[in-house]
Amino acid sequence: MGESCALQSIVYHRGSLRLLDQRKLPLEVAYIDVKCSTDGWNAIRDMVVRGAPAIAIAAALALAVEVSGLDFTGTPAEAASFVSEKLEYLVSSRPTAVNLSDAATKLQSLVSRTAETEKDAKAIFQAYIDAAETMLVDDVADNKAIGSYGAEFLKQKLGNSKHISVLTHCNTGSLATAGYGTALGVIRALHSGGILEKAFCTETRPFNQGSRLTAFELVHEKIPATLIADSAAAALMKNGRVQAVIVGADRIAANGDTANKIGTYNLAISAKHHGVQFYVAAPVTSIDLSLPSGDEIVIEERSPKELLNTEGGLGKQVAASGISVWNPAFDVTPANLITAIITEKGLVTKSDADETFNIKDFMQSAK
Amino acid sequence: MGESCALQSIVYHRGSLRLLDQRKLPLEVAYIDVKCSTDGWNAIRDMVVRGAPAIAIAAALALAVEVSGLDFTGTPAEAASFVSEKLEYLVSSRPTAVNLSDAATKLQSLVSRTAETEKDAKAIFQAYIDAAETMLVDDVADNKAIGSYGAEFLKQKLGNSKHISVLTHCNTGSLATAGYGTALGVIRALHSGGILEKAFCTETRPFNQGSRLTAFELVHEKIPATLIADSAAAALMKNGRVQAVIVGADRIAANGDTANKIGTYNLAISAKHHGVQFYVAAPVTSIDLSLPSGDEIVIEERSPKELLNTEGGLGKQVAASGISVWNPAFDVTPANLITAIITEKGLVTKSDADETFNIKDFMQSAK
Repeated sequence: MGESCALQSIVYHRGSLRLLDQRKLPLEVAYIDVKCSTDGWNAIRDMVVRGAPAIAIAAALALAVEVSGLDFTGTPAEAASFVSEKLEYLVSSRPTAVNLSDAATKLQSLVSRTAETEKDAKAIFQAYIDAAETMLVDDVADNKAIGSYGAEFLKQKLGNSKHISVLTHCNTGSLATAGYGTALGVIRALHSGGILEKAFCTETRPFNQGSRLTAFELVHEKIPATLIADSAAAALMKNGRVQAVIVGADRIAANGDTANKIGTYNLAISAKHHGVQFYVAAPVTSIDLSLPSGDEIVIEERSPKELLNTEGGLGKQVAASGISVWNPAFDVTPANLITAIITEKGLVTKSDADETFNIKDFMQSAK
Repeated sequence: MGESCALQSIVYHRGSLRLLDQRKLPLEVAYIDVKCSTDGWNAIRDMVVRGAPAIAIAAALALAVEVSGLDFTGTPAEAASFVSEKLEYLVSSRPTAVNLSDAATKLQSLVSRTAETEKDAKAIFQAYIDAAETMLVDDVADNKAIGSYGAEFLKQKLGNSKHISVLTHCNTGSLATAGYGTALGVIRALHSGGILEKAFCTETRPFNQGSRLTAFELVHEKIPATLIADSAAAALMKNGRVQAVIVGADRIAANGDTANKIGTYNLAISAKHHGVQFYVAAPVTSIDLSLPSGDEIVIEERSPKELLNTEGGLGKQVAASGISVWNPAFDVTPANLITAIITEKGLVTKSDADETFNIKDFMQSAK
């Protein structure tokens, strides 16, 4: 099955953006029209679109659509302010996602710089649109690089066995990115390289991104795959049925501590206990060198309804009335539980000396 | 709130048995009439009633109802055979539950012995009915003893802190037993002893016994409680928000290895990683000395539908069509991850010498 058959979560043509409503998958394939940053904010907040890279691109393109049709009479500086404020607003839809704030910062700096030389407000908007569109194109290329680096490394690292099976969590595929995927991109590359025995995916409670989205993509791509409850992961590892766990990242601190979907930390502890390798696959935009460690990562808490009702809060009530709920969206996996971080610039591995990641040096040399 | 307000999963009067349909909780409180062993078999298999002790008692009482109204013309030996065969059939409804097979063996031996001296088939049935009814009464008394031993031990063990918070998994309360509960009985005793800060319960995927049943009981009993996704347990422990994990058991091997609801092993690994104590609370009938270790425990696999559809398989489809599923009902937690086993005869702790349980000696001295 070629790339052309892969699901597109973001369908963009200049002046028009449609987002696949991922809340309706896997039973219904429906798109939502996004005409402005408010539509984009709502789509991100309501999880029409999710996955750190996809969120950033969807937000950027939502604003690109808005400014492409805008009747704006202000100065270039006012245009730059307009873009800047809208981006700030978009970032507030999902504060934990570093790709989003990172993209916003870059785009804000671009429009400020452009406003210093350009005399027409329209040129500011055009520069913004061009930059947002480039993000879309680059994301797919980056993911393919992540997949290829990851598959190559795993092939070497697990060299004795001809085939390997891996476990993944949440959704990091075509649906979470502009295309191909990060952790799921590595699985895709392992499969097309003929060395994947089987992919296991967790349900990923409470929003079921695994059973709804990852399972959907794996079936769609005809990759041999099995779904398990999140809590069955330890039993799976005890049976020796997986050789590696590969997950995505919402945010990676300077020391390698990684915030990702709730349950990732559980899997990492279990992997360590069973001697199973544990990989984080993410674009370098997920790395936030301003955070010394995971302790500084703010963890978003989501609605109790996600646990109280079926379908991640959208369906009927199943839990007991009156029960309190603690529903963190993410947890932080400390670097000491992570074997390596797979990026589009290559692998971040640990120094033999002290078993730590030197991400700062990696980022310097990757530039 | 007194005992009288506690939910009854098993409502029995001689000649009549009604089982609370736990699949409909927490939204609907409905009972199912059980008139014979076939009704009992179906109720157990379809999870109308669940929880190892409750299953055993429900099975025994289903047959008690059947024989109480039976027009039987055979010999005492034939009556004993009749009971024996029906019990064997009932055991096949849930082969992993040792309480069930244990109860069946005891009842089979009782009717055989009775048949050697009695001349009337009716006396066989009467002896059977008396024994089944005694099981019901004894179970509540045993659970209260488990609760009291457990709360006392935890109070001593965690002596420095005035209040403790605990995490539990699945449902081990009034609904899983004839009353009071095992692991939930310990939590109940901690609460009535004034030393419980808060109980956390997991959703317990894929059948949601935690969010449906345990949460329901905790709210009903006004015990401060919070529900979490199974996969949030490690993050909870990292935050230092629980001092102990207390779970039930479906089967405990001679070395202390414990089969319990899928996800228990996950919690035990995470507890070990965070230095959180991990307790198994179960009646001695859950101990099977014929099994040297957990390796000999056969793990039941349940329907893929439990993961593919909402409401543990009874609701609408949410997962992707065509995905394979691995859905083990239980996992095995090795004894080295267990701090102590709490029974109605007292605590099984580890010898200081080699950090192992000597359950055989404990069972001998407990007799």
